[in-house]
Amino acid sequence: MTLWNKGTTTEKAVEEYTVGNDPTLDIELLPYDCKASIAHAKTLAKIGILDKKELEMLEKELLHIKKLAEKGEFPITQAQEDGHTAIEEWLTKKLGSVGKKIHTGRSRNDQVLAALQLYEITQLEEIKQMQAQLVNALQQKITKQGEIELPGYTHTQKAMANTVANWLGAFIAAAKDNNILVEAVQKLLDQSPLGSAAGFGTPGIPLDNEYTAKEAGFSKVMQPVTYAQHSRGKFSANILHTLSQIMQDANKLATDLILFNTTEFNYVQLPSNYCTGSSIMPQKKNPDVLELVRANYHVVLGEEFKVKSLNSNLISGYHRDMQLTKEPVIKSFQITLQTINIMSAIVANMTINKKNCTTAMSEELYATQKVYELIKKGVPFRDAYLQVKQNIN
Amino acid sequence: MTLWNKGTTTEKAVEEYTVGNDPTLDIELLPYDCKASIAHAKTLAKIGILDKKELEMLEKELLHIKKLAEKGEFPITQAQEDGHTAIEEWLTKKLGSVGKKIHTGRSRNDQVLAALQLYEITQLEEIKQMQAQLVNALQQKITKQGEIELPGYTHTQKAMANTVANWLGAFIAAAKDNNILVEAVQKLLDQSPLGSAAGFGTPGIPLDNEYTAKEAGFSKVMQPVTYAQHSRGKFSANILHTLSQIMQDANKLATDLILFNTTEFNYVQLPSNYCTGSSIMPQKKNPDVLELVRANYHVVLGEEFKVKSLNSNLISGYHRDMQLTKEPVIKSFQITLQTINIMSAIVANMTINKKNCTTAMSEELYATQKVYELIKKGVPFRDAYLQVKQNIN
Amino acid sequence: MTLWNKGTTTEKAVEEYTVGNDPTLDIELLPYDCKASIAHAKTLAKIGILDKKELEMLEKELLHIKKLAEKGEFPITQAQEDGHTAIEEWLTKKLGSVGKKIHTGRSRNDQVLAALQLYEITQLEEIKQMQAQLVNALQQKITKQGEIELPGYTHTQKAMANTVANWLGAFIAAAKDNNILVEAVQKLLDQSPLGSAAGFGTPGIPLDNEYTAKEAGFSKVMQPVTYAQHSRGKFSANILHTLSQIMQDANKLATDLILFNTTEFNYVQLPSNYCTGSSIMPQKKNPDVLELVRANYHVVLGEEFKVKSLNSNLISGYHRDMQLTKEPVIKSFQITLQTINIMSAIVANMTINKKNCTTAMSEELYATQKVYELIKKGVPFRDAYLQVKQNIN
Amino acid sequence: MTLWNKGTTTEKAVEEYTVGNDPTLDIELLPYDCKASIAHAKTLAKIGILDKKELEMLEKELLHIKKLAEKGEFPITQAQEDGHTAIEEWLTKKLGSVGKKIHTGRSRNDQVLAALQLYEITQLEEIKQMQAQLVNALQQKITKQGEIELPGYTHTQKAMANTVANWLGAFIAAAKDNNILVEAVQKLLDQSPLGSAAGFGTPGIPLDNEYTAKEAGFSKVMQPVTYAQHSRGKFSANILHTLSQIMQDANKLATDLILFNTTEFNYVQLPSNYCTGSSIMPQKKNPDVLELVRANYHVVLGEEFKVKSLNSNLISGYHRDMQLTKEPVIKSFQITLQTINIMSAIVANMTINKKNCTTAMSEELYATQKVYELIKKGVPFRDAYLQVKQNIN
Repeated sequence: MTLWNKGTTTEKAVEEYTVGNDPTLDIELLPYDCKASIAHAKTLAKIGILDKKELEMLEKELLHIKKLAEKGEFPITQAQEDGHTAIEEWLTKKLGSVGKKIHTGRSRNDQVLAALQLYEITQLEEIKQMQAQLVNALQQKITKQGEIELPGYTHTQKAMANTVANWLGAFIAAAKDNNILVEAVQKLLDQSPLGSAAGFGTPGIPLDNEYTAKEAGFSKVMQPVTYAQHSRGKFSANILHTLSQIMQDANKLATDLILFNTTEFNYVQLPSNYCTGSSIMPQKKNPDVLELVRANYHVVLGEEFKVKSLNSNLISGYHRDMQLTKEPVIKSFQITLQTINIMSAIVANMTINKKNCTTAMSEELYATQKVYELIKKGVPFRDAYLQVKQNIN
Repeated sequence: MTLWNKGTTTEKAVEEYTVGNDPTLDIELLPYDCKASIAHAKTLAKIGILDKKELEMLEKELLHIKKLAEKGEFPITQAQEDGHTAIEEWLTKKLGSVGKKIHTGRSRNDQVLAALQLYEITQLEEIKQMQAQLVNALQQKITKQGEIELPGYTHTQKAMANTVANWLGAFIAAAKDNNILVEAVQKLLDQSPLGSAAGFGTPGIPLDNEYTAKEAGFSKVMQPVTYAQHSRGKFSANILHTLSQIMQDANKLATDLILFNTTEFNYVQLPSNYCTGSSIMPQKKNPDVLELVRANYHVVLGEEFKVKSLNSNLISGYHRDMQLTKEPVIKSFQITLQTINIMSAIVANMTINKKNCTTAMSEELYATQKVYELIKKGVPFRDAYLQVKQNIN
Repeated sequence: MTLWNKGTTTEKAVEEYTVGNDPTLDIELLPYDCKASIAHAKTLAKIGILDKKELEMLEKELLHIKKLAEKGEFPITQAQEDGHTAIEEWLTKKLGSVGKKIHTGRSRNDQVLAALQLYEITQLEEIKQMQAQLVNALQQKITKQGEIELPGYTHTQKAMANTVANWLGAFIAAAKDNNILVEAVQKLLDQSPLGSAAGFGTPGIPLDNEYTAKEAGFSKVMQPVTYAQHSRGKFSANILHTLSQIMQDANKLATDLILFNTTEFNYVQLPSNYCTGSSIMPQKKNPDVLELVRANYHVVLGEEFKVKSLNSNLISGYHRDMQLTKEPVIKSFQITLQTINIMSAIVANMTINKKNCTTAMSEELYATQKVYELIKKGVPFRDAYLQVKQNIN
Repeated sequence: MTLWNKGTTTEKAVEEYTVGNDPTLDIELLPYDCKASIAHAKTLAKIGILDKKELEMLEKELLHIKKLAEKGEFPITQAQEDGHTAIEEWLTKKLGSVGKKIHTGRSRNDQVLAALQLYEITQLEEIKQMQAQLVNALQQKITKQGEIELPGYTHTQKAMANTVANWLGAFIAAAKDNNILVEAVQKLLDQSPLGSAAGFGTPGIPLDNEYTAKEAGFSKVMQPVTYAQHSRGKFSANILHTLSQIMQDANKLATDLILFNTTEFNYVQLPSNYCTGSSIMPQKKNPDVLELVRANYHVVLGEEFKVKSLNSNLISGYHRDMQLTKEPVIKSFQITLQTINIMSAIVANMTINKKNCTTAMSEELYATQKVYELIKKGVPFRDAYLQVKQNIN
């Protein structure tokens, strides 16, 4: 039975279309839903909707669900539609009329927002740690082989002398800038939507939203209540932008490595257990993992634009459209975490082919330096440039 | 064991990252893979790689796999990576060294292309039928209630008189134009990639590609062999564009119905079993299905741009990146078919509120007609326009 | 003075915001607007709104404007907002009350659609010719240097032997498939919107839309009238998809050439007058043109996404939003034509470095052939594959 | 003459294709280019490349160019390609060999980065001020009419009671969150790329990058030098994301106002000088400005996608592709500033139709409150919900 059952026969096709893969996605959110539900229950107790014993029962049972959910053992059926209903049904089955009280003063609209935001804040912490791991791998590689010289490229053409330290160092700088983005988004997310209910508050129920926010782990309450629904699209968009930025850097590193791993360049030796073979060409050792890293940037980018396009030309207030922003966010977190993890391992295990790098340091890479030597002798830059060029052509 | 096992320990993370959800997605493709494999086996027999008995064994077993696959009973394990390997392993297990011969003169690269194209051609046929069903629902609604007048809108403002026949008729015209797109894409897909192997043909193996093409159900052979890999991104992009066009029309119809279903407009009565309730507001009868139709346009659009962005800045020839274009295509076919199906049902079951439409036909909708009446009396258009305007303001 | 002047002071900011760069863009459309206006005038004469002499005056003046416009000498001021108003004001100034009659039975809504579609049909013809020119350049290069062998790549790794004929031939195949798309879109565009006025026809004015269509050069009349506004977004989306497909192929060819032009690969010698230098590194000969070709795919793709995202979540009927789909279309035609033109010249003028290609044909490229030789001796494929692989590792 | 002239005839088509509209776009950047050039000249003087008098001459002339540029009177010809060359040519013409020294130790690559970042930091300040203006307009409207009740919508259906203060207040909250994004991006931009030259520093020229950074107005130097080119795509992407977020809020407010301005809803009276008429329907007063606001979100989103897609699958180091990220950034700043400006004016000048809002407050909006009243009597939420629902159906 669904929460919104009106006694009419709902076509199977409608159920499938509206439920989508919420039962699967919501497994990720359940522990956060429990956390927010406990905070909500505490507030209900504080204002006298629940008595002390009822609160204890609910709290105990919600912690139980949370534990089950974290082990992946809390079931959500398609008929239940989503995790929110699954929780309420479980509570009602276990605790009777006490379970029926938990939804007082809230809507699935603010319930899902709270669970999502708590989930997202946690995932962003993991993102930061994963980026730290990548930075660490890069730094260790620089410590080991950073002084090796290799050609620096502009226009995919040999340009000037570069070092491994400078080549890989740019990705450390990028990760630091990505952290600025992560922290800005965490700041956005740290506003409690609880108490906004369907987006218009709970007239008649004097919830203490500050208290709920604190109990759920938020620094402040979102204001006004109408911003809760407004913010959903924004928050998702900002998370996806941040993830796509991180993936863009991974895309660039993967692109470098794919080229530097060719027999023609051969500056880098990839760890062989991160390469795959061909079903027809027995000699191949292909950089499939790096190609998928490269491609997964576009996957996350597609998810970002899905959300940004979906969330347009809509009036204020909740729309069911927003349900379809959940998968892009959860999926993109998973892809990004997996990708940065695997890139760290590749960086840690790859070897710079010092000999090939050195051999590639051909004379043309020093043309600019020759210009600068002339300058030191007093030749104006533009004239020195023309002199060196004439000697080349 | 994977096909490309090199005797090195492949990290579990690599396996997960590279396999992705291919085992699930490939279930859709298995029957088409079998069909193409039978065609390939016939060619191998024709050129003497297989003897008659071996062909019979392979054909029989491939038909058996096909039947299992169509019932969803053919397993693909994560260790097998994809359906292609699962088929070869099954054949080798059942038929011994005969199974080991099936991959002669082909690569997973042309194998997946053939399976995909055959799958896509079939799905596009379903799309056409589904569109015909929607057109039929629209026509029946027009037959029943087409003469009802309702306001025509420009700028979301009442503009001129319109009829239900003309309002809904535009969606019939759109579906007809969509069929032109579907047929163009079917024409693109009707080229056999079989024999292109890894994208460079099978030097030394004199396959009869024309024969294979015919047996697999293609009108012609793709030429040159290098176009096979080049075409993959193009074909996916064209399919997704066509599906997003169909979804765009569904998006517009859904947007019309959501507005016309408000109490403020109230031109349309949606079938109640296609509406859902609220977990907090007992009075609500929400057009969730239509909102998801609207949102799913953006989902398909996101998938389209994923593929179009992914497939750029890459040199000729196969890249593993292309694996990630499979899910967007399969997922978008499923969404589009589901969406058009459900829109047909909504159109068939909705009712135009004649009374409200008629009431809404206010005088302002006829201002242009007043201008035309003045014109008939010889007043030049621009002067007539100014006269009528003055009377309004 | 603007057409919609209500006697109120319209803020300058509003004028700038709403007019945008229409005055510039409409210069492209003016000749087609004149053509459609003549067709419309003929119909007005046919039904007696204009007498024979008025028609002659209008026709003569419209042909005059058309000629001026084709030379870029017909002015559109910002105050006039767009080309449609500029034409009407010119006619009224020159012909007095006859000019004031031209807008009878039409709206700027169908006027712009007609001009746009006629413009687009013509541009698509140019696209076809430009593609023919590129195919011609590719074919001539194949005739001259097609038999040269060079490595074929998968995963950006040397894979199997390839030829210049097969490498470049894939782009000829792609251009042929692109023509299927161009022709499908031309078929869509060949429906006259004239007579649909603001999207609801011209009640009271018995226009002969079939006649207007024929005079303007369309095969048929769009039906129903409401489809005219509905089709605008679709047609723009289809044009942009087709152009982005053509650009995607150019992107791939440019990517090939940029890599093959590096000193590391060096399979191709680019014509030096299509390369540029560096402001600091005197030795550089950079493939800037090819990099811009590569980047311009993304520009057109961005324009496509813009239109497809903009045209969503909107009810039926005209919205001013649609104005902003004009620039993406016109700009993308210009970019695509320029790009294909310049790619043709590069292909015609580049040279394949036969010697380097031959040198690059290392033994590994023939591993698959060795497998096939074992197969001919009766070894099953999978066993032959493993044998050859063992010899490599 | 172009800087990279190699003595070969460069085809006109190549010039047009490569120069694009840089001469126009660079007009925006010239003052910032001068500012960065002065800082660079000071460093050249500090390390003895310029003597004191040369520095004075350059500084004076650069300030002169800056002044001309700010008045739009500094010319950039197509032959000069871009503003950087125009400046150098001007200096050389005016100051002879002193002018030829200015490009010592820099490349157009870091020159354009510095100019762009300084321009962007300034523009983001304007964005903040413009947002403050919008917030101010919203707050004044709330002070005046904030207590008016109007229906709150979910699913575009009347849901619960809302107030003008809460409706508009969400946009104030959104603007505050947008400022968090603006500030994060400003932090990213506040790193000096000067001294990175072509992306690999200036070996042999001991520039004092810290000093240049300080003189140009940056807090710190970007490190390592290779990050300068890496950061370009990132910075553009982050700016465009921030602008598209601001535009998304404008899109939502415009969508609200377009609906609330219909005769069917009629909650809002738009200022008539922000509306436009129809060329055919004399009665129309269309919300064109708001429709263009709505559409311009998609324009900026398209520009964002362009940049994010373009900047992928590219190895480290400068590519000419990046030139095409300049227009999206400049254009999107212009659109966003114009849009927020015009939205502020609309908010300031619109009127809430109190009477219509009050009339629209129908009983159904209080159903949730009835549920809460039952709850206060001790009925569990889910049972109270079902009771109220039964009374409605």
